Amino acid sequence: MQPTQLLGAVDVGATKTLVAALQTTVDRWPADVLVRRFPTPVDVDELVARIAAALAELADGRSLKRIGVGAPGPLDPITGIILHSPNQAWRDVPLGPMLAAEAGAPVALDDDANLGALGEAVLGAGAGASSIAYVTIGTGIGAGIVINGRIMRGGHGNAGEVGHLVVDPIGPRCGCGGRGHVESFAGGAGLARRARAQWPSGLLRGDTLIAAPTDADGVFRAARRGEPDARGLADDAADALAIALAAVVATLDPDRIVVGGSLGLRQRSFVRAAVLRARRRVIAEAARSLHVVPARLGSMSVLAGAAVLASQVEHHP
Amino acid sequence: MQPTQLLGAVDVGATKTLVAALQTTVDRWPADVLVRRFPTPVDVDELVARIAAALAELADGRSLKRIGVGAPGPLDPITGIILHSPNQAWRDVPLGPMLAAEAGAPVALDDDANLGALGEAVLGAGAGASSIAYVTIGTGIGAGIVINGRIMRGGHGNAGEVGHLVVDPIGPRCGCGGRGHVESFAGGAGLARRARAQWPSGLLRGDTLIAAPTDADGVFRAARRGEPDARGLADDAADALAIALAAVVATLDPDRIVVGGSLGLRQRSFVRAAVLRARRRVIAEAARSLHVVPARLGSMSVLAGAAVLASQVEHHP
Repeated sequence: MQPTQLLGAVDVGATKTLVAALQTTVDRWPADVLVRRFPTPVDVDELVARIAAALAELADGRSLKRIGVGAPGPLDPITGIILHSPNQAWRDVPLGPMLAAEAGAPVALDDDANLGALGEAVLGAGAGASSIAYVTIGTGIGAGIVINGRIMRGGHGNAGEVGHLVVDPIGPRCGCGGRGHVESFAGGAGLARRARAQWPSGLLRGDTLIAAPTDADGVFRAARRGEPDARGLADDAADALAIALAAVVATLDPDRIVVGGSLGLRQRSFVRAAVLRARRRVIAEAARSLHVVPARLGSMSVLAGAAVLASQVEHHP
Repeated sequence: MQPTQLLGAVDVGATKTLVAALQTTVDRWPADVLVRRFPTPVDVDELVARIAAALAELADGRSLKRIGVGAPGPLDPITGIILHSPNQAWRDVPLGPMLAAEAGAPVALDDDANLGALGEAVLGAGAGASSIAYVTIGTGIGAGIVINGRIMRGGHGNAGEVGHLVVDPIGPRCGCGGRGHVESFAGGAGLARRARAQWPSGLLRGDTLIAAPTDADGVFRAARRGEPDARGLADDAADALAIALAAVVATLDPDRIVVGGSLGLRQRSFVRAAVLRARRRVIAEAARSLHVVPARLGSMSVLAGAAVLASQVEHHP
């Protein structure tokens, strides 16, 4: 009998990295899968070494058939090179080839938004739909599109980059160097930057100086308490996210939009507000058929998609 | 020998209708094809009768295998019903079944933007590209998406409805009943409405009262002459079209964007201005790879797409 080969699955997030090893045949996301987690190192050599070590530990002597990796885009899935990753300040990093060399198995790389989409489409909230757009709202904002079980990357690999649509050309700086992008207003990092600029020296409630929000969740909490400035930031965030959702609906009209990402999953009322505004930004027919559901795999979407990618590449070499 | 069967091709435009009959095998748009043209009647019975008469005349005794029809959307390609057509004030019009009964041949209906895209993708400026978005700028504005030779209609048939993205929620009324849509600013009908509202009693040049622009081309002409108000309208139009183009690029990242439609083909500098602005509205990588070309089939795009549709349905019943 041949020894079992495993699929490696890796989700390199802006702040944390997840690693798993699964049986070759993946037809649902297993509830009991072992996942290794660690903060994403800024240094790429360290990142690659830690991923390879985690995979070796999880494989426990069995060999890896292929490793699927989700990483922040934009990147080139053919060469496995990350072109730039604003949050890590990476530029032209050959993550795919580096990991393949270190872990001794072929690597298939794609961006985290695409793989979250693939994971949710095949193993999560998109099951049964023929087309989905998976919109991730975390540190940044991206979208991945899956039509008939295949990732639609676009002609130059930039499909789904709706987080960088311009909302306001003279708006706040985006992580990518641009100005006033959707994610400058509605992404976790952008909201945190806006919060720190808004309340450099704390927040007054009545006459009492209290700690000001310094992250996105804090902004939404303060908005729910009725702080006017926080409501302004939360409104701007919902308007910006609505522009991204409207672009997806008007262009693609997917069967279903699946919303994931840490902020998207925690701040459901923010997402609902954005969906409401997006409905008002598209033609009436599209507004009526707009169907938005939360990601079902939670923080495992990208990891699941990485496993699906590894299994697909195996079947379509 | 079997008598030759023909494919019928029909383009029901907002203002004029084109009808052609072609050999079953279509692999390029024939330069010498006979086309019948007439103003599109507002009355649907009259429209159907005139199309059927034109097809019968062109077929000259030969039978029609199938008829492909492009019509203004939104519509249901399965049932052949036009849901509503703002410019004709049609609502739930079963154009497909009506024409099939009158002409005695099966009818395949799709919206003019989708068929323009299919025609250009297979027989025109999109040849060789794996994904194109075909943006039509005429009386209204729409887009059709073709990926690997297939029309992407979206989950509810509303893919490509980027002409109704909202630019300004309190902006001018759109033909569809909404407000401040892309086509309210950048479509031919919207620009004409804006021109008539802007200059209700003529335009002053120096001290001389001259005829004011009453249509889109007039606005662009006056803008090129340097009339400040006309430049304002032309700027708004370019900004609005840029929003539609940016939505397409950020979501789909097509290999190529093909621009057609009567206004899009006549007003090249307007389109160039919009493309320039669209580049500033998307992430830098997508802006660099944005590739926009004029439609090659000119006013025959939709008619060619209708012929391609008729031939495809034949091959994939």
